[in-house]
Amino acid sequence: MIIDVVGSGSLGLLYGGKLQDAGNEVRFWTRTAEQANKLSVEGFKVTEREKTIQISSDQIQVKPITELTRVWEHSPGDWLLLMVKQTAIKDVIHEIASLKTRVLNIACFQNGIGHLNVVQSNMPHSNIYSVITTEGAKRQQDGVIRAGIGETWLGKSSDIRSSSLMPMDQNESIRLQGLLQQAGFGCTVSNEIDKLIYRKLLINAVINPLTAIWRIPNGELITREERIMFMRQLYDEAWAVYEASGILIDGDVWDQILSVCRSTASNTSSMLSDVLHGQQTEVQSITGQIVSMACRCGLSAPTHEVLLHLIEGMQPEGVS
Amino acid sequence: MIIDVVGSGSLGLLYGGKLQDAGNEVRFWTRTAEQANKLSVEGFKVTEREKTIQISSDQIQVKPITELTRVWEHSPGDWLLLMVKQTAIKDVIHEIASLKTRVLNIACFQNGIGHLNVVQSNMPHSNIYSVITTEGAKRQQDGVIRAGIGETWLGKSSDIRSSSLMPMDQNESIRLQGLLQQAGFGCTVSNEIDKLIYRKLLINAVINPLTAIWRIPNGELITREERIMFMRQLYDEAWAVYEASGILIDGDVWDQILSVCRSTASNTSSMLSDVLHGQQTEVQSITGQIVSMACRCGLSAPTHEVLLHLIEGMQPEGVS
Repeated sequence: MIIDVVGSGSLGLLYGGKLQDAGNEVRFWTRTAEQANKLSVEGFKVTEREKTIQISSDQIQVKPITELTRVWEHSPGDWLLLMVKQTAIKDVIHEIASLKTRVLNIACFQNGIGHLNVVQSNMPHSNIYSVITTEGAKRQQDGVIRAGIGETWLGKSSDIRSSSLMPMDQNESIRLQGLLQQAGFGCTVSNEIDKLIYRKLLINAVINPLTAIWRIPNGELITREERIMFMRQLYDEAWAVYEASGILIDGDVWDQILSVCRSTASNTSSMLSDVLHGQQTEVQSITGQIVSMACRCGLSAPTHEVLLHLIEGMQPEGVS
Repeated sequence: MIIDVVGSGSLGLLYGGKLQDAGNEVRFWTRTAEQANKLSVEGFKVTEREKTIQISSDQIQVKPITELTRVWEHSPGDWLLLMVKQTAIKDVIHEIASLKTRVLNIACFQNGIGHLNVVQSNMPHSNIYSVITTEGAKRQQDGVIRAGIGETWLGKSSDIRSSSLMPMDQNESIRLQGLLQQAGFGCTVSNEIDKLIYRKLLINAVINPLTAIWRIPNGELITREERIMFMRQLYDEAWAVYEASGILIDGDVWDQILSVCRSTASNTSSMLSDVLHGQQTEVQSITGQIVSMACRCGLSAPTHEVLLHLIEGMQPEGVS
């Protein structure tokens, strides 16, 4: 089985390293030639509690994404795991545009929801799967640490307006599930992936922008009453939008949000991390999606809208 | 003439130093005993373009605010210049509470508007004057630099619901104007101080919270279109509240806001400075006042309200 892992961040190395260690042919594709060069010279490690996997320089296959289509001409992959940040999706899709007439199996690991239609509309014949994961991985100088063992769900979002002539192939997702389980991931194929996607979207929409603006780790959100009230306001606004949009989620998501703050108390959210490093954030695919959904169903989500503009207004030239 | 200057920040030292240099008896009152001790040992300098004033340790009268009422028993002052931050007003008033039956002349130099009624209701027989200044002063280790020569306006705000039996004494403000002019300040007594107060409130409400959240100097606000759009949204919301409240301001305040951003481009707003130092900000007396005014006239100011809660939610435990 040939698996193409696009992106060499923490998730890319965690999944790719373990899939390779389980006997698959894994090819890593990086955004820059420098990243590819560094990985190909140094290899990388996946550090887990029980063992450490070493993918050495003579074992690793890694190239910049610009070379993917050329390689594919003589050796197409079976699965393409799209593990770049949501903000890099357009660039990646642009690089593999010449594959648009082919049928790829693409698994999207991004937060938010905006990217799915971008991928589908550019790769109209491909099978696009959504992946939701609670795996915790930390990128290190020499590889990645599996910081928390989580669960991986995959399925097909009903939000994707597929123009594919191919019927949805349930077997494909079962096959990826098998590969991931074999590689040591708890993995479930879900017919209700949308519920998971929208649950994660809501959790992210409440936690991420606030941690980015207040510049605090997740756990600090729930240490003060006025912060919890603000989170609740975001939650209530988004929940009204969900209800009006007919999105149903199981369980008490508000409780889940508080619980995520506790269980990831010392973590820096990806949005805060991006802000601190002067990088583009995923706010458009998280908060921006709540705002768009509100708009589509004739509601407004004013607090989310203000946060969207505030995060968008941030830039590296900040004082501190 | 005995002038009591409460607060030893940049404005306190600038006005106090120059008033003393012009021949007045100036007494400085600090919030802590440490501040008083340091000033009494070291004295301070007021550095201006043309000359430097040195108030040496044998010339300076400085005590902590806790001693003010005791000193006043045998030697009352003629004017009390209240130059602490708006957030410290309640503490200061508490310290001089035993003077509440007396008639003081108090000049309030704070931003915003919330503090005026706090002072008036606690000192019901006093004459409370509002001061608006565009003087630029920078606190240094050994004193203060007069960074920009501005204008000082003083007058009586109609917002103060005075319970004083005394008629408003126009002569008092003329007297302070004379003292300030003599000390080298451009000073005007204004019957329309409210217009100046509300103009400054609006300018601060647009500039300060955004610089604090984005952590940028004032000039960076107008370098990007999306930031200007956000400022405009704050401006329009506040302007609607002003109109509904019957507050009239001369001139094009939007133009003035852009002009302040340009003329103070490299400055860090006081709100950003407070956020960076983990101190309480003046957001309640600026943004909070716009929100309260909106509420009183049956409008809402949702963007200001979100900013109010975001600034209030900030605290020193931030990541960066």
